[in-house]
Amino acid sequence: MDIGSVNYLPYEDFVDVFGNVVEKCPLITAAVWSRRPFSSLADLEASINDFIDALPESGKEGILRVHPDLTGRDLQSGSLTRESREEQVQAGLDTLTTAEVSRMARLNTEYKDHFGFPFVICARMNNKATILRQLEERLRNERTIERACAIDEVKKICHLRLQGLVVPETSNKL
Amino acid sequence: MDIGSVNYLPYEDFVDVFGNVVEKCPLITAAVWSRRPFSSLADLEASINDFIDALPESGKEGILRVHPDLTGRDLQSGSLTRESREEQVQAGLDTLTTAEVSRMARLNTEYKDHFGFPFVICARMNNKATILRQLEERLRNERTIERACAIDEVKKICHLRLQGLVVPETSNKL
Repeated sequence: MDIGSVNYLPYEDFVDVFGNVVEKCPLITAAVWSRRPFSSLADLEASINDFIDALPESGKEGILRVHPDLTGRDLQSGSLTRESREEQVQAGLDTLTTAEVSRMARLNTEYKDHFGFPFVICARMNNKATILRQLEERLRNERTIERACAIDEVKKICHLRLQGLVVPETSNKL
Repeated sequence: MDIGSVNYLPYEDFVDVFGNVVEKCPLITAAVWSRRPFSSLADLEASINDFIDALPESGKEGILRVHPDLTGRDLQSGSLTRESREEQVQAGLDTLTTAEVSRMARLNTEYKDHFGFPFVICARMNNKATILRQLEERLRNERTIERACAIDEVKKICHLRLQGLVVPETSNKL
């Protein structure tokens, strides 16, 4: 689909297609439909990012809290969204050793107890080694910095999901 | 569950229980978890309403756009959320005559084309006759007024869903 076709979508189809570019937050997609027409995929992405940035801090934490734990109960039980499952599998998170699963679970719990939201990272830009390392490192962040860091990861995930749905513009097109 | 128990819920359980008090907007529930402890059910409800009120107008329209059409494709196909299905059935919307279904579909389409979001009404506070009448009347509203009216209905729906989940306080309790 190209951006011209996107601009013609009624809101119901727009939400069907883009409703999970921010995990479990179709409200955000449905809100940015108001900003049509989009001049480009980057413009659509910027509209989503602007909406996220304008939310109060509790709203940003809300976005994080509807994300699944990496290698958590949703991966084990098969209840992840399609997008999350593919991303976790691509990062090798379904092939952790028992020791790695235990370490990830322990760190996830420590992180959630500390921050009150789950560790979010763009799995497709990482692998299990870098994910575990970053989880340990980010646990030491100050809360405000870590919330901003996690929201940046949400935006990276959104970027890649959008890339998979809309044909990017050629370089000579506005 | 009483409000004391609610205040002890980890965010994952809180979102599991309250994630759909605003239809398909677990982000909102997950956000207001930051406001614990709640002094009462009314305090929890006020936190949700405050969050909604603080959203930009596009965000309020986003909330409306993730709502299903009354007697629409989701009711026909069985893909409504449990809460929506029960509410539509309680209002008798699964027993419309063919003529009533056609009239509702025509008015819903006219409404959506006009406002860019679906007609939202608290079905449990209405019946099929009052719903059809209000749909016709609200179609004539100015856009800003109608958006506010629809958001008021979202809050009524939320109020009743919360009442079904939390034991209300006795009258002699603060």
